Amino acid sequence: MSVVVTRIERADTRVIAGLALAGVATVHEAQGRTGLMQSGLRPIYGGARIAGSAVTVLMPPGDNWMMHVAIEQLREGDLLVAATTSPCEDGYFGDLLATSAKARGCRGLIIDAGVRDVRDLTAMGFPVWSRAIHAQGTVKETLGSVNVPVVCGGALVHPGDVVIADDDGVCVVPRVTAATVLEKATEREAREAEKRERLAAGELGLDIYGMRERLAQKGLTYL
Amino acid sequence: MSVVVTRIERADTRVIAGLALAGVATVHEAQGRTGLMQSGLRPIYGGARIAGSAVTVLMPPGDNWMMHVAIEQLREGDLLVAATTSPCEDGYFGDLLATSAKARGCRGLIIDAGVRDVRDLTAMGFPVWSRAIHAQGTVKETLGSVNVPVVCGGALVHPGDVVIADDDGVCVVPRVTAATVLEKATEREAREAEKRERLAAGELGLDIYGMRERLAQKGLTYL
Amino acid sequence: MSVVVTRIERADTRVIAGLALAGVATVHEAQGRTGLMQSGLRPIYGGARIAGSAVTVLMPPGDNWMMHVAIEQLREGDLLVAATTSPCEDGYFGDLLATSAKARGCRGLIIDAGVRDVRDLTAMGFPVWSRAIHAQGTVKETLGSVNVPVVCGGALVHPGDVVIADDDGVCVVPRVTAATVLEKATEREAREAEKRERLAAGELGLDIYGMRERLAQKGLTYL
Amino acid sequence: MSVVVTRIERADTRVIAGLALAGVATVHEAQGRTGLMQSGLRPIYGGARIAGSAVTVLMPPGDNWMMHVAIEQLREGDLLVAATTSPCEDGYFGDLLATSAKARGCRGLIIDAGVRDVRDLTAMGFPVWSRAIHAQGTVKETLGSVNVPVVCGGALVHPGDVVIADDDGVCVVPRVTAATVLEKATEREAREAEKRERLAAGELGLDIYGMRERLAQKGLTYL
Amino acid sequence: MSVVVTRIERADTRVIAGLALAGVATVHEAQGRTGLMQSGLRPIYGGARIAGSAVTVLMPPGDNWMMHVAIEQLREGDLLVAATTSPCEDGYFGDLLATSAKARGCRGLIIDAGVRDVRDLTAMGFPVWSRAIHAQGTVKETLGSVNVPVVCGGALVHPGDVVIADDDGVCVVPRVTAATVLEKATEREAREAEKRERLAAGELGLDIYGMRERLAQKGLTYL
Amino acid sequence: MSVVVTRIERADTRVIAGLALAGVATVHEAQGRTGLMQSGLRPIYGGARIAGSAVTVLMPPGDNWMMHVAIEQLREGDLLVAATTSPCEDGYFGDLLATSAKARGCRGLIIDAGVRDVRDLTAMGFPVWSRAIHAQGTVKETLGSVNVPVVCGGALVHPGDVVIADDDGVCVVPRVTAATVLEKATEREAREAEKRERLAAGELGLDIYGMRERLAQKGLTYL
Repeated sequence: MSVVVTRIERADTRVIAGLALAGVATVHEAQGRTGLMQSGLRPIYGGARIAGSAVTVLMPPGDNWMMHVAIEQLREGDLLVAATTSPCEDGYFGDLLATSAKARGCRGLIIDAGVRDVRDLTAMGFPVWSRAIHAQGTVKETLGSVNVPVVCGGALVHPGDVVIADDDGVCVVPRVTAATVLEKATEREAREAEKRERLAAGELGLDIYGMRERLAQKGLTYL
Repeated sequence: MSVVVTRIERADTRVIAGLALAGVATVHEAQGRTGLMQSGLRPIYGGARIAGSAVTVLMPPGDNWMMHVAIEQLREGDLLVAATTSPCEDGYFGDLLATSAKARGCRGLIIDAGVRDVRDLTAMGFPVWSRAIHAQGTVKETLGSVNVPVVCGGALVHPGDVVIADDDGVCVVPRVTAATVLEKATEREAREAEKRERLAAGELGLDIYGMRERLAQKGLTYL
Repeated sequence: MSVVVTRIERADTRVIAGLALAGVATVHEAQGRTGLMQSGLRPIYGGARIAGSAVTVLMPPGDNWMMHVAIEQLREGDLLVAATTSPCEDGYFGDLLATSAKARGCRGLIIDAGVRDVRDLTAMGFPVWSRAIHAQGTVKETLGSVNVPVVCGGALVHPGDVVIADDDGVCVVPRVTAATVLEKATEREAREAEKRERLAAGELGLDIYGMRERLAQKGLTYL
Repeated sequence: MSVVVTRIERADTRVIAGLALAGVATVHEAQGRTGLMQSGLRPIYGGARIAGSAVTVLMPPGDNWMMHVAIEQLREGDLLVAATTSPCEDGYFGDLLATSAKARGCRGLIIDAGVRDVRDLTAMGFPVWSRAIHAQGTVKETLGSVNVPVVCGGALVHPGDVVIADDDGVCVVPRVTAATVLEKATEREAREAEKRERLAAGELGLDIYGMRERLAQKGLTYL
Repeated sequence: MSVVVTRIERADTRVIAGLALAGVATVHEAQGRTGLMQSGLRPIYGGARIAGSAVTVLMPPGDNWMMHVAIEQLREGDLLVAATTSPCEDGYFGDLLATSAKARGCRGLIIDAGVRDVRDLTAMGFPVWSRAIHAQGTVKETLGSVNVPVVCGGALVHPGDVVIADDDGVCVVPRVTAATVLEKATEREAREAEKRERLAAGELGLDIYGMRERLAQKGLTYL
Repeated sequence: MSVVVTRIERADTRVIAGLALAGVATVHEAQGRTGLMQSGLRPIYGGARIAGSAVTVLMPPGDNWMMHVAIEQLREGDLLVAATTSPCEDGYFGDLLATSAKARGCRGLIIDAGVRDVRDLTAMGFPVWSRAIHAQGTVKETLGSVNVPVVCGGALVHPGDVVIADDDGVCVVPRVTAATVLEKATEREAREAEKRERLAAGELGLDIYGMRERLAQKGLTYL
């Protein structure tokens, strides 16, 4: 059955902003190394770091009809998260859809498939993380669903989850734990700042983390 | 049999220039979604958008001898389109060959294999779309052919076909239909410009394209 | 058995500097087309060209504990060369480890696995060639070895070998032949400079290299 | 947090038996083309067709410790469904674990990673669907979880879901809808039996399914 | 434009039978090492060796509608050769379509995509060479074409070409040269039979083919 | 430089026989989880389990000339281990070469590339582990080397090393440690036999290996 869920809950905007600032690697660690998408999803241009509430869309291979349906569900601060029912690298999304999504306040696209018009998307500053860049066109014949749980890049995404994306990849944080994860991420960053300083001064991780004894116990031998 | 076809017909230079301007995604759509190469062929640097007449070369794995033969067949405005008889990602082409090709007016290289010296090629502004970047050297022992039809990146290319390449990939337009395709591409761009404006103003594709009724007929359910 | 070899021999620093200048493609040719790593190892940012003495580290999948052990063995001018005992694309290395490695004079990392914090690494100017970019975290539970011979990117690397890396990939030169290879690389560059000039002037490789006769003997036919 | 959920609900054994009989392709169709794992998970030997209740296990890369924990949770008629926190093709499972799983009534293993001892597993008649066959050993150092929801082969699996596997791949049916899906699968098989007979007699799908008119409307042209 | 070409020319049935007997490796050599499909197309079961006239079908990703159209064009002794407009591994073909194709005299399927019901296909003795085995269903919404030239597995196939398939892969022989290729294949086999005998008796290829002198001239050194 | 090393040392034949009996998974464990080739090298038919002394051959892509040179170096009980200087899946080896190799006592082939004539090789009972099955022909133009160290399937192989291959993959044991490794493999098998019996009787690995306490200490929680 093809459905569009029109009401989804979103996380607090300040929490989302905080998670964007922390970035993918830190957030992924802060929530116990879960929620990371596969490394095959890469940004079409470098340097972007965003977070937003997931509006999800599930589409058949080679058919981007539901993109238009999904865009209507987007609000300011959302991210579009697109999955397909079987692997496909067609160009589901280009500059027209990006123009429309942006007009509704969408911050970017995460898609387990292909995109096109990447020169225009780059010029627009509309960031995309995709499996492929491919000009291959799609049809508009078969329904899918909007705002249902999807598996995207190997990670489970529920509508309204917070999705963080940067040059390191894409990470999903369940809406209900987003505030707690942000807290842990912030603590982690504080701890790391101090470590970074000591490491920059030439101190060794072996000493800072007190690893030498345990390494010796495990049997590490210096020759 | 190894042959070099020395006379090939080329498309009108104004048509080629027009297709370059339209870009890969638009041209691919304009000719009925055919002629697109696989997404695995990527540009060695971003931002280039070119079109030219295909001079084709077919080579054995790990052997770039025919590159030298092909370069002699290049004229101002041509693109070199290179395929191999079995998959190979060796570096068939580097800065010396690029210097030679450029001296003959070649606009770039499309190769279903590897290239090297990409720093130099980038500095020269000689664009390449390739399957891989690899310094691996090749030998000069076995013949191939020049200006025969080749399958490159999964697409059939005849010598003299127009090849368009940009950040979205590579598309082949048969020489005889190039003018017609350009016409359709231009129309398409005009239509898109108008749509882009409406979408930017917040109008939805669902309404612009009148999709709502057909979606309902197919059974799309809003919850 | 897990060992750390603390004393390794390194090549002459002037030889290393010369090899960096020559770059991967030239060095690879100069040593008879050996030592090149697979094309799957790509730089996290473009434009870097470095060479250094290899400090090697072998780690289990998903476990970067030995990174900390390896960093202690680094000296000014070294490159860290990391391999895993089975294929893994987890993010073994990020900005904290880079800070520590840099503080010890390390020039960069070659890793047959994943890295993360690539935005920070880029900002730091710490170049990495890796199989993947992935935020996926690792544990610190299982030993590996430091400064043992490793197979990285399909190439055999002994500790103290000279490793050259640039946009074309990564090449390994055995320490004992490094000076000879540099000599050949320099000669090669001189020869190429002259060729480049002639090619730029429009002369053909077919004539410069005297290929026409041999092509005809092999049966190449012009139509 | 690493947890073992010891109580899971399972589907009716007659429903499970019925789904096994129907096979993956039919079940996948019967539940609306959802729940299918990626084609990369292949059986280690041909001809097996099984179904069972999923006992899930989530493990770190290169670490199969939780396999031992999961086996204790297996009951007669279960299938072990194993996922990893990042992609890994190590041999997580071999003949000793299979002996233990079999002793507890386990019908087979679905694993998004590697297995080994496949000759023994084949001789034992213990079927496995895996991403890879690899003798690579694993460690027992890091916790994971048992009977939590996992993404395996791109499909979401909850503990107690019915998993069907045969030469066509692996399909997951949520426990609560299993009986309904079986009903639809049975109906589908009945319909197909009749179609098969007519097709075998030479009647065309074009006529049986009444496709000719719609094809013509869409513009199909016979030359 | 979507077309069905209803009249195609086929090669002589005795020539086709002869090419089947010769097998893929011999035929591929006999026609100058051209026409071979990529190694990624594998038989769903071992031991089959067939040849037939190609009826081609080009389909969109995830849509097998044109399969039904193509089957009507099949005659006794044909092979169905299926390509898609963009890469897709969905299960385009199963036991119902095979029943229908077989009823029309079709000898097998070559498909640059996925198939399903492989257990039934194997039981029926209907051989398939495919890119993937996947139960994933397809829709019937979008047209394609039948009996147009297609690129399948990287090889160009015209309708009526002779296609040979066995455990070594799939090879295409243009219809017009099929008789000549068969002649060369037969000669090749005769020559090989004599070589095989001498090699089995312990004679070396180095001597039979007189390679020693040329190896020495090239600089091969025995240590 | 292209060389053929004509004298290599081989391991004791009884040790080799013992290692064959133990199989890849056991041997790999017995030597500390080293020496395993990548999982991409698969047997062309199931059920073979062999071991032999490595005669190595290194060849350019698409060129199998050195195969003939290597065959002369084979003795009773050897295995041919073939690598290429860059990735290639051409069919380097078929039934004629197998006939010749078998006549010299060769037990099988391990090749990091493609093979062909697999139906004949299977009929002959000549086992091959390869990266691909591909009929693609090769040339005989460029030298390589025989009996030099090679990296094959990611593992370093020295001439005379013992190579074990079965359905689980391929493992390399350095000649000098072969006897010790066999000893450990035998011990391991004895231990496993006892474990297998207890597991078959329903005892749990958790208890046999005493894992419960350590799991609890690490924080495993049963719900």
